[in-house]
Amino acid sequence: MAMNNPLNKKFSDLAGTMKPSAIRMLLRVTESPDIISFGGGLPNPESFPLEELKEIFEEQLKINGKKMLQYGATEGLKSLNRALAERMRIKEDIDCLPEEILQTTGSQEALYMLGKIFANPGEYVISEAPTYTGTITALRASNINMIGVPMDDDGIIVDELRKTLKDYPDPRFIYVIPNFQNPTGITMSYERRRELLEIASERGIIIIEDDPYGNLRFEGSKIPSIKSMDRDGSVVYLSTFSKVLAPGFRLGYVIATKDIVEKLNLAKQAVDLASSTISEYIAEGYVTKGYMDRQIPKIISLYRHKRDMMIESFEEYFPGDVEYTRPKGGMFTWVTKKGANTDKLFQKAMEMKVAYVVGSAFYFDESNHESMRLNFTYSTDEDIVEGVKRLAEVFRRYT
Amino acid sequence: MAMNNPLNKKFSDLAGTMKPSAIRMLLRVTESPDIISFGGGLPNPESFPLEELKEIFEEQLKINGKKMLQYGATEGLKSLNRALAERMRIKEDIDCLPEEILQTTGSQEALYMLGKIFANPGEYVISEAPTYTGTITALRASNINMIGVPMDDDGIIVDELRKTLKDYPDPRFIYVIPNFQNPTGITMSYERRRELLEIASERGIIIIEDDPYGNLRFEGSKIPSIKSMDRDGSVVYLSTFSKVLAPGFRLGYVIATKDIVEKLNLAKQAVDLASSTISEYIAEGYVTKGYMDRQIPKIISLYRHKRDMMIESFEEYFPGDVEYTRPKGGMFTWVTKKGANTDKLFQKAMEMKVAYVVGSAFYFDESNHESMRLNFTYSTDEDIVEGVKRLAEVFRRYT
Repeated sequence: MAMNNPLNKKFSDLAGTMKPSAIRMLLRVTESPDIISFGGGLPNPESFPLEELKEIFEEQLKINGKKMLQYGATEGLKSLNRALAERMRIKEDIDCLPEEILQTTGSQEALYMLGKIFANPGEYVISEAPTYTGTITALRASNINMIGVPMDDDGIIVDELRKTLKDYPDPRFIYVIPNFQNPTGITMSYERRRELLEIASERGIIIIEDDPYGNLRFEGSKIPSIKSMDRDGSVVYLSTFSKVLAPGFRLGYVIATKDIVEKLNLAKQAVDLASSTISEYIAEGYVTKGYMDRQIPKIISLYRHKRDMMIESFEEYFPGDVEYTRPKGGMFTWVTKKGANTDKLFQKAMEMKVAYVVGSAFYFDESNHESMRLNFTYSTDEDIVEGVKRLAEVFRRYT
Repeated sequence: MAMNNPLNKKFSDLAGTMKPSAIRMLLRVTESPDIISFGGGLPNPESFPLEELKEIFEEQLKINGKKMLQYGATEGLKSLNRALAERMRIKEDIDCLPEEILQTTGSQEALYMLGKIFANPGEYVISEAPTYTGTITALRASNINMIGVPMDDDGIIVDELRKTLKDYPDPRFIYVIPNFQNPTGITMSYERRRELLEIASERGIIIIEDDPYGNLRFEGSKIPSIKSMDRDGSVVYLSTFSKVLAPGFRLGYVIATKDIVEKLNLAKQAVDLASSTISEYIAEGYVTKGYMDRQIPKIISLYRHKRDMMIESFEEYFPGDVEYTRPKGGMFTWVTKKGANTDKLFQKAMEMKVAYVVGSAFYFDESNHESMRLNFTYSTDEDIVEGVKRLAEVFRRYT
């Protein structure tokens, strides 16, 4: 088939503007086995409950096989949504009906569809800066702009948010990741959550609370989700099975008012009709039979150890002027060296066989070149130590 | 949470125009067990290879467990794409590289993304009329218009297509389902396929050849796919595991030139990042270990029998002026009564406890109210006979 296809001119304007995700590109580059990669946002395969999954699959296939293989409802498996509603009530103090939940093909699809239903092309939303690169990709694909608000150790700075709202008074929503944020690992304080909700509610602005990592807290007390404080249905809550079961299922979910869920349902009919019923039945078994509650502490214990390894290696090897966050959960830490340019450093790091994600990938306007995101969950203990040593060397030699 | 939410005003223009799919609505109505539904496009659960799936799942989990549960590449599992490229070469005479294949979350996602990459909002494409309702839903969600070209027993009427092209000279693509079309069950003749490709190639128009049912031929000889005659990469070929394995996997695939696959890859990064790796590993086992080749004849034999039951029941019970197609494969037949209004008849049919999909659902402009689509694969033999009797009664009493 022709490689240099004259049919290229047939592409839409959108297709012309689409850019590869920095992280996806990176994953291709760093597949080489001699590179220690802190780049991907990958769970550790040691955290996957292989034996349990075999049990669950067999049991569900035996009991529900024919339904498990058939087309499912767009909103997801009813018994799964019921189990999640119950879990949310008990564990998260979130009061929702099964009809207020919609399963999505990973949280990515939720982010994409939320952009579609809430914003017209050319409009803008507000987020933390930095923010999750997958959200940037999802919104950019719908030509939606993002205005970033700076963070400190307590999360989004609400005074800065107020200032931003003066210049940008009508954001279509405010997107935040309050727990162990991607990419910074920072957790938003209780006070900030309350203030944020107050600001949004006053102005009738939707908050999208993305919570993929909330279950993975290594220490300290749980902080109530913004959704649990929501009184008027202005918070849309997202979570996923990718970090507490496995990403291969491509199963995320949205909790929102019925009218929002109904719009997402219509969007999903167009985008992919329904999520995988096989994934949904397995997830249902995982939640309802207690597997999930037994697995989460194991994942936490593994990741806490990995986090400790990485932070201790930072302390031991990094030059004194390199700053980093000490996340109390999740998967990432955010490393900053004032005056450095991590985009330029990346090539040097690759030469030293260590990879990270450049900080600029987490800014809609690609500003900030002083930081990088490091994942601490995927690598072996030895690789964490060795990778940090290499990174320290990169900092020392080239900055 | 507030049911009548003032945040409604926050929805995008798109969200305001989204309509529920006629078929999804129907599926909700017809869930009642006393209704015989010929409505859904559901495979028969008897066709699902339950035992084989248990074997494949266990083996893949044992050998590839950790990769099977991890995030996968956006384009899909390399070994699956390799196996499909090989299969396409042998079975379909389609010459493609693994890099020219992209896995999608069901064909629905492919249809949605093809709209995105080839057409700007407000532009138009050409399709058979009637056409698959899922394609209408996918394109409508991107504000893409569809111009329908009439069909006869040999598929799209190419003289009519030429006429249409005079009024609509720049369609972003031509969408067709050549084998056992949904909804009509009609198969496009070899001559029509050649002519269609010629017309499109001359004018530099992309053809999207959707082939979910090609493997399910009950009788007669296979007709070469348009893709197999493609010389300049202008044909995008779609297929799916939904009809030859099971829909619960949500696994379809696109075969196209590398530049088109790369654009789809970028779109998929925004929409859902990647398909289910679990589904992909199971599909890979299904294809490479010979399960698929053993299963397809079983499905064909089951569906041929169901088709025969339905056509024989038509012959026995339908009034003489009711016309219907006699599909040589696939899942659907198209029933027409001149002067009838099947939208209005639907209520009567529901009273008689039998359901179908109204013909107007398969027209972008919702014209044509004389037809209905009947699925023959899902119901039991007894229900096929009884359902046709009831429909015959509806025709007799109310038309």
